[in-house]
Amino acid sequence: MKFICEKNNLQEAISIVQKAVTGRSPMPILEGIFLDASNDELKFIGSDIDLSIETTIKANVIEPGKIVINSKIFGEIIRKLPNDEVSIETAENDSIIITCQNSIFNITHLEANDFPMVPSITEDLIFGIPQGILKNMIRGTSFAVAVDETRPILTGILFEINDKMLNMVALDGYRLAFRNEFIDNENSINAVIPAKTLNEVVRILEDSNENVDITFTTNHILFNLGKTKIISRLLEGEFIKYNSIIPQEFNLKVTVDKQKLQSSIERASLMVKEGNANLIKLDIQDESMVITSNSQLGKVREEIAINLQGSPIQIAFNSRYLLDVLKIMEEDEVIMEFSSSVSPCIIKNKNKLNCKYLVLPVRLVK
Amino acid sequence: MKFICEKNNLQEAISIVQKAVTGRSPMPILEGIFLDASNDELKFIGSDIDLSIETTIKANVIEPGKIVINSKIFGEIIRKLPNDEVSIETAENDSIIITCQNSIFNITHLEANDFPMVPSITEDLIFGIPQGILKNMIRGTSFAVAVDETRPILTGILFEINDKMLNMVALDGYRLAFRNEFIDNENSINAVIPAKTLNEVVRILEDSNENVDITFTTNHILFNLGKTKIISRLLEGEFIKYNSIIPQEFNLKVTVDKQKLQSSIERASLMVKEGNANLIKLDIQDESMVITSNSQLGKVREEIAINLQGSPIQIAFNSRYLLDVLKIMEEDEVIMEFSSSVSPCIIKNKNKLNCKYLVLPVRLVK
Repeated sequence: MKFICEKNNLQEAISIVQKAVTGRSPMPILEGIFLDASNDELKFIGSDIDLSIETTIKANVIEPGKIVINSKIFGEIIRKLPNDEVSIETAENDSIIITCQNSIFNITHLEANDFPMVPSITEDLIFGIPQGILKNMIRGTSFAVAVDETRPILTGILFEINDKMLNMVALDGYRLAFRNEFIDNENSINAVIPAKTLNEVVRILEDSNENVDITFTTNHILFNLGKTKIISRLLEGEFIKYNSIIPQEFNLKVTVDKQKLQSSIERASLMVKEGNANLIKLDIQDESMVITSNSQLGKVREEIAINLQGSPIQIAFNSRYLLDVLKIMEEDEVIMEFSSSVSPCIIKNKNKLNCKYLVLPVRLVK
Repeated sequence: MKFICEKNNLQEAISIVQKAVTGRSPMPILEGIFLDASNDELKFIGSDIDLSIETTIKANVIEPGKIVINSKIFGEIIRKLPNDEVSIETAENDSIIITCQNSIFNITHLEANDFPMVPSITEDLIFGIPQGILKNMIRGTSFAVAVDETRPILTGILFEINDKMLNMVALDGYRLAFRNEFIDNENSINAVIPAKTLNEVVRILEDSNENVDITFTTNHILFNLGKTKIISRLLEGEFIKYNSIIPQEFNLKVTVDKQKLQSSIERASLMVKEGNANLIKLDIQDESMVITSNSQLGKVREEIAINLQGSPIQIAFNSRYLLDVLKIMEEDEVIMEFSSSVSPCIIKNKNKLNCKYLVLPVRLVK
């Protein structure tokens, strides 16, 4: 194998596929990047079995071939090379020679045949969605997935397509995140994708209006960004019937400035202790919300103006759960709906109906 | 005690004196910031005994007084407050009340009397030096101090004033850093200041031409920046007679592009292993320097153009020691002087004579 290509192109391709490569794997081959040089193209693949990312760049291929190179060392060498043409060729003793200007590296490579096969997917069930929107939807839900693995299905995000709407849902037993967007597709889909792989997908998606094409198979989802394709395993099992969890009615409704609420809760959180479930209390009155918190560190009282429809209420929350939601909401004003001090609170935008968040209160011992 | 002042002023003062406060101290009082409100001024002091930093801001002092507040929690609260006037007053049960707009915090304070005394220093032996220059001199030497404490004096930087020159020297047995600048002062000084405290001083100094005034006493150095004063303990003992270590003669002299040399060594370092003393070999020939390195990771060969006066030589170094020097040198070209493959190498600017670095080679087993 021998090819020549631009250092910058190489570096970008490596940084894309590296997102699927685990730093330390019991299988050294999985710490590598698969390279396939042929037809004046260079294909890169990184994989941790669950997630595979492949991308292609132009190259002057002098002798076609396939090899695997350790991702970390390959990435470091290319990054440090001067900005010029790089030549890479195989040499004796399972090694490759990397040359750029007056730098010559000689490192070992692994066998291309040992690299895990990327699932072959026929791209037939395709819908497109702007990359920026998908990125927002993932960011707007992934924080709410379960961290512990006792119910593996909850470590993923539900992708549900119904009536031309894409719904994404994540929940962990204490809170639920729901976002949806219109898509121009008649299909019906119900699949759960590991949040771990979606968090890598987010790092590759751009904040642009360019579409990413999505294909589902029985076991996989494929994100096609043109030169780059991302394939993730789906989680097995049924997702929770989330619709039955979200209350449809409420007794009181608070409209509040999002940034003021977030800042007040952040300050109130300074007085909470992790061991204490990050407890803050909300005393919702006619025209104001008083947020208090106390611990051995001290106590704090915050007051902000609100618009209340309904009767006053006192309710307590884990401040982190409220902050996670407020941080990713995009409108200046949010609506909070309550039924009682032991029922879930719903948080949504004042105007746009593309998200809904549920947070369970902390029950106070009277 | 009661005073009112601007949040931004408070925040800046806290962040300055916090640089002397250790996060976790066996003495809780040392985790605190001392506050003295009087005469429409608010004085802040942070101290870890070795290093004390004090700074003063304007405040509307309604009731004078002195207290100590936990530095971490105080800093976090002030940072999160809205950008407005902040009122702080003492209350019952050794607590203080911090109020800003609709936020009210109530936290405990400590006794001002328990706070360690800052050494009182008469500012009589003063010389001034622009802050930016002192900052560069500290940065240009502190990397070379000894890390282990077997010879405590080597964990400090020598400040030596002789014949209107300020010399700063640090060494750790493997390398030596020397920088000097002209100062308009006839005194003669020889004092060693802990690098640990100087690294905090660097973070307070600005890249400006404004002078910092320096006073030495038998046991302390005082840096006076106007509103802020920094007092550091001196290290006890005699510094090494560094002049006898620096060779005055050499057999060959290499002139080389600093950035190219640095990049080549950085790339060569990718193939070194920590356990192997970061070994790289330099083969210095008539018009080129070939840098090689190899380990089980692979091997690398770098070649750069040089100008050589003298005979070719082969010599090996710990790459980190060379990189530490090259990273902080400021000219485009550097000069390296060698005598033999087992004698120290001297690195200096091509033009400006304000620095000199010595690095010991690694002796190769033939």
